[in-house]
Amino acid sequence: MSIYFDNAATTKVSDKVANIVEKVMKDDFGNPSSLHMAGFDAEKYIKEAKAEIAKILKADDKEIFFTSGGTESNNLALIGAADANKRAGNKVLVSSIEHPSVKTTAKHLEDLGFDVIYLPVDEDGVVKMDALKDAMDDDTILVSVMHINNEIGSIQPIDEIGEYIKSVNPKVVYHVDAIQSFGKIDVKPKSAKIDLLSVSGHKIHGPKGIGFIYIKNGTKINPIIFGGGQQEAMRSGTENVPGIAGLGVAAKDAYDNLDENANKLTELKDYLIDKLDAVDGVQVNSKKGTDGAPHIVSASFKDVGSEVLLHALEDKGIFVSAGSACSSNKPAISYVLQAINLDEDLLKSTIRFSFNADNTKEEIDETVEALNELLPILKKYVRK
Amino acid sequence: MSIYFDNAATTKVSDKVANIVEKVMKDDFGNPSSLHMAGFDAEKYIKEAKAEIAKILKADDKEIFFTSGGTESNNLALIGAADANKRAGNKVLVSSIEHPSVKTTAKHLEDLGFDVIYLPVDEDGVVKMDALKDAMDDDTILVSVMHINNEIGSIQPIDEIGEYIKSVNPKVVYHVDAIQSFGKIDVKPKSAKIDLLSVSGHKIHGPKGIGFIYIKNGTKINPIIFGGGQQEAMRSGTENVPGIAGLGVAAKDAYDNLDENANKLTELKDYLIDKLDAVDGVQVNSKKGTDGAPHIVSASFKDVGSEVLLHALEDKGIFVSAGSACSSNKPAISYVLQAINLDEDLLKSTIRFSFNADNTKEEIDETVEALNELLPILKKYVRK
Repeated sequence: MSIYFDNAATTKVSDKVANIVEKVMKDDFGNPSSLHMAGFDAEKYIKEAKAEIAKILKADDKEIFFTSGGTESNNLALIGAADANKRAGNKVLVSSIEHPSVKTTAKHLEDLGFDVIYLPVDEDGVVKMDALKDAMDDDTILVSVMHINNEIGSIQPIDEIGEYIKSVNPKVVYHVDAIQSFGKIDVKPKSAKIDLLSVSGHKIHGPKGIGFIYIKNGTKINPIIFGGGQQEAMRSGTENVPGIAGLGVAAKDAYDNLDENANKLTELKDYLIDKLDAVDGVQVNSKKGTDGAPHIVSASFKDVGSEVLLHALEDKGIFVSAGSACSSNKPAISYVLQAINLDEDLLKSTIRFSFNADNTKEEIDETVEALNELLPILKKYVRK
Repeated sequence: MSIYFDNAATTKVSDKVANIVEKVMKDDFGNPSSLHMAGFDAEKYIKEAKAEIAKILKADDKEIFFTSGGTESNNLALIGAADANKRAGNKVLVSSIEHPSVKTTAKHLEDLGFDVIYLPVDEDGVVKMDALKDAMDDDTILVSVMHINNEIGSIQPIDEIGEYIKSVNPKVVYHVDAIQSFGKIDVKPKSAKIDLLSVSGHKIHGPKGIGFIYIKNGTKINPIIFGGGQQEAMRSGTENVPGIAGLGVAAKDAYDNLDENANKLTELKDYLIDKLDAVDGVQVNSKKGTDGAPHIVSASFKDVGSEVLLHALEDKGIFVSAGSACSSNKPAISYVLQAINLDEDLLKSTIRFSFNADNTKEEIDETVEALNELLPILKKYVRK
C-alpha cells in the first residue's frame, strides 16, 4: 500500500464523482445546446452543478462559468479583465508567490504592454499590505492574489485586501485564485469583495479537465475563447457535461463535510509538523492550526537534495512533492521559497507533504520513520 | 426506444472509452507533472494516446497537443498563429461556412486589427478556388478551412487548397478544422500540407471536454493559455488524463473500423436521401456517396418550420437538429445555408440528420414514416 501525500498536486476522484461522470457519459450524453430532450437532459446537470456551487459561494447561479480547469480560469481572469479594463488604466498587481498559471499569465500581460507589479510577501508568505498600498494608484485596474499558496500553505488576508482595494477604487477588478482553498476552508467572494474567483475540480476529488470561475455580476471582463456562444458567450465550446456534473458533486461533498475535514486535516498537519520539528536539521515552512492551510506542510531538510529525498521516499511507497507539481516536471529553484527568504542552502532541500481527509496518523508515523532512516544516509552523499 | 440522429452535435461515449476514463480517474489519478510513480503512471496514458493519434495522422508524437476540445483547438490555431505571424502580414482567409468556433474567433481577429476575408462557397458548399486565389497575396499569413461542414456535410478540397497555398508562399500557416471529419474519413495533414489541424473527442464517441490540435513541427504559433509549462508550454494546465486516455481509445476505435464504418454510414445516408427525394416538398442539401460527409444529411421541408418539425419528431422519440447544435440554443438563420444560396423560404425549414455507425435502416424507415405522417399536418399550420 502506498502513502499518497501529494494531494495539493491532485486528488483521487471519489467513487461518487466517478459514478456520476460515468452515468452522464453513457446515459445522458446529449449536447446541452441541442433543442431536443437529450440536450435538455444534459443541460439539467449543468444547472444543478451551477446551483450547487452558487449555494456554496453564496452567489448567484449566473455568476458561475465552467472552464477546463484552474489554469484556464486564472488565464480568463487575468487576460479577460486586463483586456476589458485597459481603457481605465494599465497597471496590474499580483503577489510574488502566485501559482505559475497566474504568474506566467502576468508575464504575458507584460508582453502585451501592461505594467505588472509583483507584490512582496513576508517570511510567512503573506502579502505585505504596505507594499499593496504603495503600489495601488489611479492607473491600477486589476489585483490578483491567491487564497492559499500551493507550496507552503500560507493564507492571504483576502478580506482585508478586498476591503482596501475597493475603498480606494471600487472599479479595480479583484481576482482571487482559490484553487488550493476551495473545499478546504470557507470561501465567500461577496464578503471579501471579490470580483473573480478561480477553482479547479481535480484538487477536491473531482475530475481533471474541469473548473470554474466566479464572475461577480457586472464585472468588466472579456472572453478569451470564442465560438458558439455557450455560457453567455463568456466561454464558448460544448460544455464538458460529465466533468461539470462531477465537479458539482465534488464541491457539494467538500462543503457538506467542510468542518469535519478541515479539523481532520489540521490535526494531521499539526501532528506531522510536531514530529518534523523534533527531527534534527529539519525546518518547517508552514504554520500550525488555522494560521496555515489545513492540508499543506512544507519542510526543508538540511544537506539533503529534495529530489533525492523524494525518490528515496518513493522507494518506500510514499509520494510527496519537491516544490510543487504544477511546473511540468521541470525542477527549478522555487520562487515561492525565495520570496519568503528561505536560507539559500535549503532552497533545493524542500519537500511538500499534502493531505486529503482519508490520510491517517499511521501514514504520518510511517513517513517520519522513513525520514529518520533515510536522512542520515542521504546526508552522507550530499555534494558540498 | 429513441432514435438518435444528432451525432454531428455529439455522440454517445463508447463503453470502452467510459471504462478507461473510469479506470484512470480511480486508479491512476496522479498528476503527470509529479516526479513520483503516480505521476509517471499518469503520464504513460498521455504518451500512449499521443502515439496512437500520431500513428493515425502519420505524424510525429511531438506534433500532438491536447486541448479542452474543438473550440479551444480552433481558437489556439487562429489566435496563436495570427499572433505569432503578425510581423509577416495582416491578412487571414477563412471560408464563409466555418463553424462558429472559427468564425467568431475570426471576428475577434478583426477586432485585434487583422484583415479577415471570408471566402465564398458554391451551391454545394465548396470553397471557390478562384476566390481563394484572388484573395491570397503577400500580406496573407493564415488560411483556415474546415474539412467537413457540420451543417450540410460538404467536403472541402483540402489537398488542393494546401497545394495552392504552399505553392504561393510556404510560410502561410494552413489550418484545417477536422472536427467533423476525423474518425469519419481519412485525415492526413502531411499530404495536404496542413500546418494546424483541430479535432474534438466527443464527436467520435470520446469524452466531452477533450480534443487535440496537430501542430506541424516548425509552425510559428503562440500559446493562448499560460501557466506551468505543460505540453512544451503550448498548452499549460494539468492534463486531463482520463479524457486524454479516452480520446486515444476513441480515435483508435474510429480508425480501426474506418472503412467499415464509412461504408455503413454512407449507405445509411444514401438510403435516407433516396427516401427523402421521394417525399413531396423536400429538398436535400447534402451529396450522396463520397461527394459528401458519410454521416450528415441536411434537408429542407417546404412550408414547415424547422423547430416545429424538430419538436414533432422529438415527440416520436426521434432526435435531430435544426441547423447545428453548436450555437448554444439560439435558433438563428444559418449563415451556412445562406452561403450556399438556399431558397429564402427554405432557410427556416431545414433539418440536419446525422448518424453514427450503430444507426440502422429501420430507424430511417421509422423516421421517414413519421415525416410522411407529420408533414401534411404541420403544413396546415404554417404562417404565410
